[in-house]
Amino acid sequence: MLDLPFLPFCVLLGGLGFLCMAFVSAWCQHWRGGFALDGSAQMFNWHPVLMVTGMVVLYGAAALVYRLPPAWSGPKLPWKVLHGALALAAFSLSVLGLVAVFRFHNAHGTPNMYSLHSWLGLVTVLLFSCQWLAGFSAFLLPWAPVWLRALYKPVHVFFGSTILMLSVASCVSGINEKLFFSLKNGTTEYKRLPAEAVFANTLGLLILLFGVLVLGALARPSWKRPDADSPDSCQVPAPLR
Amino acid sequence: MLDLPFLPFCVLLGGLGFLCMAFVSAWCQHWRGGFALDGSAQMFNWHPVLMVTGMVVLYGAAALVYRLPPAWSGPKLPWKVLHGALALAAFSLSVLGLVAVFRFHNAHGTPNMYSLHSWLGLVTVLLFSCQWLAGFSAFLLPWAPVWLRALYKPVHVFFGSTILMLSVASCVSGINEKLFFSLKNGTTEYKRLPAEAVFANTLGLLILLFGVLVLGALARPSWKRPDADSPDSCQVPAPLR
Repeated sequence: MLDLPFLPFCVLLGGLGFLCMAFVSAWCQHWRGGFALDGSAQMFNWHPVLMVTGMVVLYGAAALVYRLPPAWSGPKLPWKVLHGALALAAFSLSVLGLVAVFRFHNAHGTPNMYSLHSWLGLVTVLLFSCQWLAGFSAFLLPWAPVWLRALYKPVHVFFGSTILMLSVASCVSGINEKLFFSLKNGTTEYKRLPAEAVFANTLGLLILLFGVLVLGALARPSWKRPDADSPDSCQVPAPLR
Repeated sequence: MLDLPFLPFCVLLGGLGFLCMAFVSAWCQHWRGGFALDGSAQMFNWHPVLMVTGMVVLYGAAALVYRLPPAWSGPKLPWKVLHGALALAAFSLSVLGLVAVFRFHNAHGTPNMYSLHSWLGLVTVLLFSCQWLAGFSAFLLPWAPVWLRALYKPVHVFFGSTILMLSVASCVSGINEKLFFSLKNGTTEYKRLPAEAVFANTLGLLILLFGVLVLGALARPSWKRPDADSPDSCQVPAPLR
């Protein structure tokens, strides 16, 4: 493939991530009535903003930490801490995003967890919590043996990409669902494609593009840390192979 | 990772693919009134069945052809033909699936192409048509120079996984959308989680699991053809590197 350098790609990706956050915030602010913490529809609006910011943009940033060339030399521990901290921040935002939608539903007597979007979203966040805990236990705490780290590392990498894929599918189904809920009267019917629908559909495509670019960057061999197949870092004296 | 052999995995995946097709057919037959070719809701029912069968199950089978150990030795051309033929079958079913939904919409005066699901689905099928044509021109027709095949191969591989990811996201958003359309009265309201909703939500999760397993199998280094990095096959005398 063309020999694209990682850092300009990263700047482009950062811009795209910022655009996703700006689009989802603008959608909720301009068309959906803004934000509040009172269990109203304005409380619900935190849900898309926190999920996109946490489970897509921050998650993508956490996933790409080891692709930064400065992370390729010197001690690996600071980069592990950065990876874990960004992932924890992403997870925290996603939990707050779930609180927002559950409180909104409960305040309106709407059942929780019935749509495919909600099932998929909850599976994604649950998988992410397992991934974070297992990653923290295996790679940041000092007591995991090298053989366990070696065994678990490809599983962690696989679920890292899988969870991002599930996040993106959750966002797309959620935006689609929200537009069907919100746009159903007169000239603002979804099927008449009012400005809000074009804007939020575009947001969905931007999120997909962001996810695909992160997954592509993760899969690109020349952007991997040269010792990426070793089970660990300089916390252990020598790589297994 | 655990050294899982490819063929038992393939049998499991085949069973899961069959289950996805059985679930989507049973959903449309049992709860949505069955199938017809008259522009009615029964014509629409071909849409989910053809999309899941074509863009997910057959597409997944086409993507995994080169992971079959018998494809690793001997001439590559028969396997290329099988890969291209399965992909063409998948593409043909997806076009028929689009015809079904467009004819249903047109017969009912419903606008086409307004929801995020429809935008994403069309982007996916358009990308797939480009992917098939470019793959056919570069790898099956004899006139593409080796340098072009070498340049294009990683792009083809990247878009192969990307299109499957987009297909799965399209299916999930489509099932979610269809359930909100269909289940809105009395005891069959989606939010009351009637049997149909549980069944179709489960279908969505099965499709996601199938997609994730195919993408995982494609990414697994030990299942790749040993010369997977060469740009071509024994149609050219020697690999580039």
